[in-house]
Amino acid sequence: MHYQLYYWTGIQGRGEFVRLALEDAGADYTEVARVEGDAVMYAFLEGSKEGPRPFAPPFLKAGRLVIAQVANILHYLGPRLALVPETESRRLQALQLQLTITDLVAEVHDTHHPIASSRYYEDQRPEAARRAEDLRSNRLPKFLGYFEDVLEQGGGRHLLRQHSYVDLSLFQVLSGLDYMFPKRMSTLAPTLPLLQGLKGRVAQRPNIATYLASERRVAFNTNGIFRHYPELDAA
Amino acid sequence: MHYQLYYWTGIQGRGEFVRLALEDAGADYTEVARVEGDAVMYAFLEGSKEGPRPFAPPFLKAGRLVIAQVANILHYLGPRLALVPETESRRLQALQLQLTITDLVAEVHDTHHPIASSRYYEDQRPEAARRAEDLRSNRLPKFLGYFEDVLEQGGGRHLLRQHSYVDLSLFQVLSGLDYMFPKRMSTLAPTLPLLQGLKGRVAQRPNIATYLASERRVAFNTNGIFRHYPELDAA
Repeated sequence: MHYQLYYWTGIQGRGEFVRLALEDAGADYTEVARVEGDAVMYAFLEGSKEGPRPFAPPFLKAGRLVIAQVANILHYLGPRLALVPETESRRLQALQLQLTITDLVAEVHDTHHPIASSRYYEDQRPEAARRAEDLRSNRLPKFLGYFEDVLEQGGGRHLLRQHSYVDLSLFQVLSGLDYMFPKRMSTLAPTLPLLQGLKGRVAQRPNIATYLASERRVAFNTNGIFRHYPELDAA
Repeated sequence: MHYQLYYWTGIQGRGEFVRLALEDAGADYTEVARVEGDAVMYAFLEGSKEGPRPFAPPFLKAGRLVIAQVANILHYLGPRLALVPETESRRLQALQLQLTITDLVAEVHDTHHPIASSRYYEDQRPEAARRAEDLRSNRLPKFLGYFEDVLEQGGGRHLLRQHSYVDLSLFQVLSGLDYMFPKRMSTLAPTLPLLQGLKGRVAQRPNIATYLASERRVAFNTNGIFRHYPELDAA
């Protein structure tokens, strides 16, 4: 199967969670907007293309299917790319973990945009400072502590006792948080040894290492989900 | 199958999306915390029970399975309660729509808690006023306009051309928004005729009508996701 991934150019964004799965599996895929420009997505978003209308990128075209929402795309790709265990119970567990990652990603995004995603960060800086304090103090330890415990429960190396798309997504979250909150993550790192190990192992998977070193991997920047604004970070 | 639903007592909250599916299908289920108290959930949340650890309620126990995250629970229940079409493509479409509802619900929650879910609304009122203005002006028309278009694309009566758990969840969102933003929803209603029709039809489904009139349906209140604070509403 040849897959077509549609996502905004210039940022990793939510598309990166899908990209990492496709890259890790060595799947045959095209990043359509990087070839044809972002405007190619509008016909889908406006509903003038055949198939279910996505609310927002990313979406994946697989034959006649048009699949939107990261967790849904990964739920579809998982068995096809051998990136999820085969049993229904494990697939449900993978989806649950991915949706918890989705929740964390939304909270991270709203940290620099607590008032309105349509406004600039500069228009909501005081509010962002307040929200970032709560994320650093309460939400990050809660979410990351949860994933550390799930890793421990699963034997320490994988969230699902074997490699899966959820490990790849958690790698992305940890990498993004390291970029966004270097001080805070330095403080938290010693309390999260299993997550640190997971992050290192994923980065060294051959296809992932190749991808991370390639031009296809856009650098983290202050247009994406994970943004480094020094004033939002603290130990 | 006997299902056990675990969710906080005293609010509809995210549990309501699962409850509506179970009620509509006439499923055999127990609300465990309403019988035994909220504390019964802690052993699951702390990871001392067998099975995957949920990050947060709601979660569903079905035999030995423990399934968390609303969209995941509904994805599991859908085929078992005949609340989703049978093909994989339609199940993916249902999950995509449910995840878009999930996104909207998170934005609605964060409207009264834009800074920290751990703090009182009274501690973040100015920020909530700013965020509510954006939700009313930009996000609600965007999300609801999207669902109106999906309804139209699907023939006007159902999001997936047949009754499904997604119709039930959208009913819940519309009911909650009517409670939370009576002025704004009055203004928007004439632009959303298909959603208005859907809401009315779901409310009249026999099992749903019975449920809504029962003591099991907790009233909307200012502890849940959809909260009516008059100062956050405007036409």
